[in-house]
Amino acid sequence: MRWSQTLVPTQKQDPADATIVSHKLLVRGGFVRQLQAGVYDFLPLGWRTMRKVMEIIHAEMQAAGSVEISLPLLQPIDLWNQTGRNADYGPDMLRVIDRKGAENALAPTHEEAITELIAAYVNSYKQLPLNLYQIQTKFRDEPRPRSGLLRVREFLMKDAYSFDSSEEGLDRQYQAMFKAYERIYARCGIPAIPVEAESGPIGGSASHEFTVPCDAGEDIILTSDKGNYAANVEKAETGSRPHDLDSAPTGELERIHTPGQSTIEDVGKFLKVKPKNMLKSLVFEADSEGESESALVLAVVRGDHDVNEAKVVMAVKSQLPWASSVRLLDDARREKWGPKEALPIGFIGPSRTPNPLAFHLVVADPDAAQGGFWATGANEINHHLKHFNWQRDLLSQIKGEEIKFHVADIRNAVAGDPSPKNDGGVLRESRGVEVGHVFKLGTKYSEKLGANFLGQDNTEHPIIMGCYGIGVGRIMLSAAEVFHDERGLVWPASIAPYEVVITPIKYDGIAKEKADELYGQLKSAGVDVILDDRDDRPGSKFADADLIGIPLRVVVGDRGLAGGVVELKDRKTGEASEIPLADALTRVQARLKELYEALAPT
Amino acid sequence: MRWSQTLVPTQKQDPADATIVSHKLLVRGGFVRQLQAGVYDFLPLGWRTMRKVMEIIHAEMQAAGSVEISLPLLQPIDLWNQTGRNADYGPDMLRVIDRKGAENALAPTHEEAITELIAAYVNSYKQLPLNLYQIQTKFRDEPRPRSGLLRVREFLMKDAYSFDSSEEGLDRQYQAMFKAYERIYARCGIPAIPVEAESGPIGGSASHEFTVPCDAGEDIILTSDKGNYAANVEKAETGSRPHDLDSAPTGELERIHTPGQSTIEDVGKFLKVKPKNMLKSLVFEADSEGESESALVLAVVRGDHDVNEAKVVMAVKSQLPWASSVRLLDDARREKWGPKEALPIGFIGPSRTPNPLAFHLVVADPDAAQGGFWATGANEINHHLKHFNWQRDLLSQIKGEEIKFHVADIRNAVAGDPSPKNDGGVLRESRGVEVGHVFKLGTKYSEKLGANFLGQDNTEHPIIMGCYGIGVGRIMLSAAEVFHDERGLVWPASIAPYEVVITPIKYDGIAKEKADELYGQLKSAGVDVILDDRDDRPGSKFADADLIGIPLRVVVGDRGLAGGVVELKDRKTGEASEIPLADALTRVQARLKELYEALAPT
Repeated sequence: MRWSQTLVPTQKQDPADATIVSHKLLVRGGFVRQLQAGVYDFLPLGWRTMRKVMEIIHAEMQAAGSVEISLPLLQPIDLWNQTGRNADYGPDMLRVIDRKGAENALAPTHEEAITELIAAYVNSYKQLPLNLYQIQTKFRDEPRPRSGLLRVREFLMKDAYSFDSSEEGLDRQYQAMFKAYERIYARCGIPAIPVEAESGPIGGSASHEFTVPCDAGEDIILTSDKGNYAANVEKAETGSRPHDLDSAPTGELERIHTPGQSTIEDVGKFLKVKPKNMLKSLVFEADSEGESESALVLAVVRGDHDVNEAKVVMAVKSQLPWASSVRLLDDARREKWGPKEALPIGFIGPSRTPNPLAFHLVVADPDAAQGGFWATGANEINHHLKHFNWQRDLLSQIKGEEIKFHVADIRNAVAGDPSPKNDGGVLRESRGVEVGHVFKLGTKYSEKLGANFLGQDNTEHPIIMGCYGIGVGRIMLSAAEVFHDERGLVWPASIAPYEVVITPIKYDGIAKEKADELYGQLKSAGVDVILDDRDDRPGSKFADADLIGIPLRVVVGDRGLAGGVVELKDRKTGEASEIPLADALTRVQARLKELYEALAPT
Repeated sequence: MRWSQTLVPTQKQDPADATIVSHKLLVRGGFVRQLQAGVYDFLPLGWRTMRKVMEIIHAEMQAAGSVEISLPLLQPIDLWNQTGRNADYGPDMLRVIDRKGAENALAPTHEEAITELIAAYVNSYKQLPLNLYQIQTKFRDEPRPRSGLLRVREFLMKDAYSFDSSEEGLDRQYQAMFKAYERIYARCGIPAIPVEAESGPIGGSASHEFTVPCDAGEDIILTSDKGNYAANVEKAETGSRPHDLDSAPTGELERIHTPGQSTIEDVGKFLKVKPKNMLKSLVFEADSEGESESALVLAVVRGDHDVNEAKVVMAVKSQLPWASSVRLLDDARREKWGPKEALPIGFIGPSRTPNPLAFHLVVADPDAAQGGFWATGANEINHHLKHFNWQRDLLSQIKGEEIKFHVADIRNAVAGDPSPKNDGGVLRESRGVEVGHVFKLGTKYSEKLGANFLGQDNTEHPIIMGCYGIGVGRIMLSAAEVFHDERGLVWPASIAPYEVVITPIKYDGIAKEKADELYGQLKSAGVDVILDDRDDRPGSKFADADLIGIPLRVVVGDRGLAGGVVELKDRKTGEASEIPLADALTRVQARLKELYEALAPT
């Protein structure tokens, strides 16, 4: 490509709203342009990088036995009602009413569509296993689109779906996809690491997330310093933490007027108590299938910790086996349990005195289930308690009552926690950008959409599914986050918009002639090269080449040519050497070979 | 690919709603599946064909100097208001309200988005010319989605946009794109022909449509039997047709009560007069910029002809130079001109007696501007006239009045019309599927969105644009329409889902071993091959191979292998020959070479 024939609108200024480096550099380098909040044009350079990432994904998915298809974006809302995800996605999903008045989902993902398709065509174990994938647009109406390509409302995702007749088959496909992902990230040159993850709204029994560690990341990752454990904060467990419910009280229970102070922060300031000496109490509601049984659950963690809802759900289900749904009590549901005074959210605590609340179960995190000084809600609007003591103020008072008490890990892990491997490892916290996610879905979608197969046992079973996603733009973004310097981007060769830029000092005379010649040579040899044929100052052309991050630069100038040499410069190391013009092609090819070898999957 | 690893859900039954052969065969062959009206899943085979079409498009666009980008689907509605196309598209455009309450267009095309981008980055003639393209989803809310992939609501389109500083530059790019399109269709093997076309809602000064002649087509094409003219019916002109306004009347003007009869068909039956002896009169309104001047225009064609609005607009503008907008008078606008009785739509005609209407201009088509018997509206509700005579009843009566009369070609061309080349050629009518469209846009979008450049003259000019579209799915569809037989599809080799199918008579023993070996050989040699490894009857496997239209089939059976031979069969010709297994690869390669050579662009 000749620079003059494409569109590379580099700029010196960072975009006004940019806070992270990838956003700044991808806009300044002319890779992307924001059309509106969370919606981006991909300009020629940006799209070249995206295409290279996609080619790597295609190659590895197909090598792993996945078959490409393409599913539509405009989907009948009824399909999403059948799985319950119209409600689950809520305002995060875009919906469109068509001219006939029918409501459509703009697909945020494609589990529904693929399962509908499989339900129509697959009916025997003989047709399994199967693995289908696509690279297709997704829409998610982010509440706060920002950070360039990190939080966007329209984006390209590679999504694959596996279909099996057995759990072992699912395990095999999950492993195959996992390995394909490792190869994809290696070939793209990004240091993605797999961490255990929550399944979230996608659902399923197991999942791993691939994250690229960097400050811009929105995911919090906990990693053991022994190197044998990594998990997303939503999933990370902790090693065993002892609790102690038998310590003596620190003083008389003291009821204090705390008008309008309901957050840990406000109450802490008001009482002059540190959050770590307060108890944070959240109310959950557990329901049986059909809601024939319902119960309130109090979840208690230390004031400086965050409740992990997924862990609460597990803990509750271990104690109330009839519970099929466990969720945080919201305002709408609270009314079912009586007036606001009966459940004074913001002022609730585990104490039975002076105001006992009607819980069936109190679950406390080990760090909260300790002796020492505690401040907590008084179960009365605008009041809190000091000197709460578990034994005196709760446990001794519920003996004989039908109230269960349980200690379990129900909070997000934090730096310093013991590793769940219980091997003396300590968890460290870091940030990462999620670039992929693999899920064992099980039968969640096949059951709801009737995707069954006739087994060798001649009976019908729901198909066992997995799903596997990669955010294409996230790979570009995370590479930009990790690989840059003060002059601009430094792409891995495999996903650079061009492998080589030829920069004539001045594009005329002999330099033009030789630059054109070399450009033709490189192109014929299959090197992905751009010739900077602009009539511009050399300094400005060098700055642009550095900003857009082309791995190798060949500088062609009259002075060098007089001695038969050109300069070959490495963007990453900054190393430059004069090489004979006659050897330029072989030297470039040799250096590219090294760069690609460094990206070969292990 | 092994058949057992992919999903090829062939079926014997045509889909219930299918009327055209491509719809039937693409569904029966397992290429596509309808998710909802006008919205399709592409299954593995269908997507392979789509991908091959896209690869050809990419290669030819890039060879023609176009640079790939990608523009988003979710676009602020304000962008569409700036060009007036939010209103123009009306219910054909899908719109979505996001969580912030903002209205977005789901892009039906991308002129707005690309012009917005260019306006931001291009400001000098030095940056021109430029040509950018993408292959991207479009949404159009068809009122009656049908005929499989022909009328769909979500589809992939290749759209390219050219940007120039001069008309000559636009001409060059238009020609380059035109040639690239001819190469693309040739390589895809579809017999697309360029025809002159109306620009329609895209706008601009010139356009050609590429159509594939076939019965399923919705476009009507007029072609001269001299072979030197082809145009869409919306655009087709006719050679000179003489008119005659001086013939004597056929009788006294007769006023007849025609209660409730307002269509040509109804009135004709009622009066027992053939449509070709009736005058069809349509009312247009011409307005100057800002509507300081307005006039009513009567357009008159023969009752069996259709008024061509674009031709009326041209004819009116030639007579009323101040007219900037000319449009069919609709109900809402009619009220401006008085009560219903004053403009009794359905009963209007050019006669001044007994009820003259207040037109500024009467435009008659030559075939209507003739002597002989005419029935026409009486300009009075529920009344028509017989024996209308142009001279007696109109022309002699408007002398001295400010009413203009003009004869011009204002109807759609029909079979039998003289060719506009005026070389004795006669127009023939045929049907075709539109597979591409190129437009000289001029400055329509750049003016509205402020995409200007500083010229060498140091003054600002709007950028001169062209746009160039190809419907990817339309290529697949039209190939299926043109290439099939009673057994199924017969793909051109270049866009067949696989080039070769290996069909073992029975997939075990020596046949399995040799089939696997040959499969490996072909794959290694870069042949796109599928191995039918299913445990199924040979007849069923042959039928499937024929239905999905793979160009070459290699049958591997025990009997042949005993003699060291396999069967090579050509899907199109049906020719089969026994070839030595040892030569299978070279024979397949040689035959494929022939097939591709037949598709080489001329």
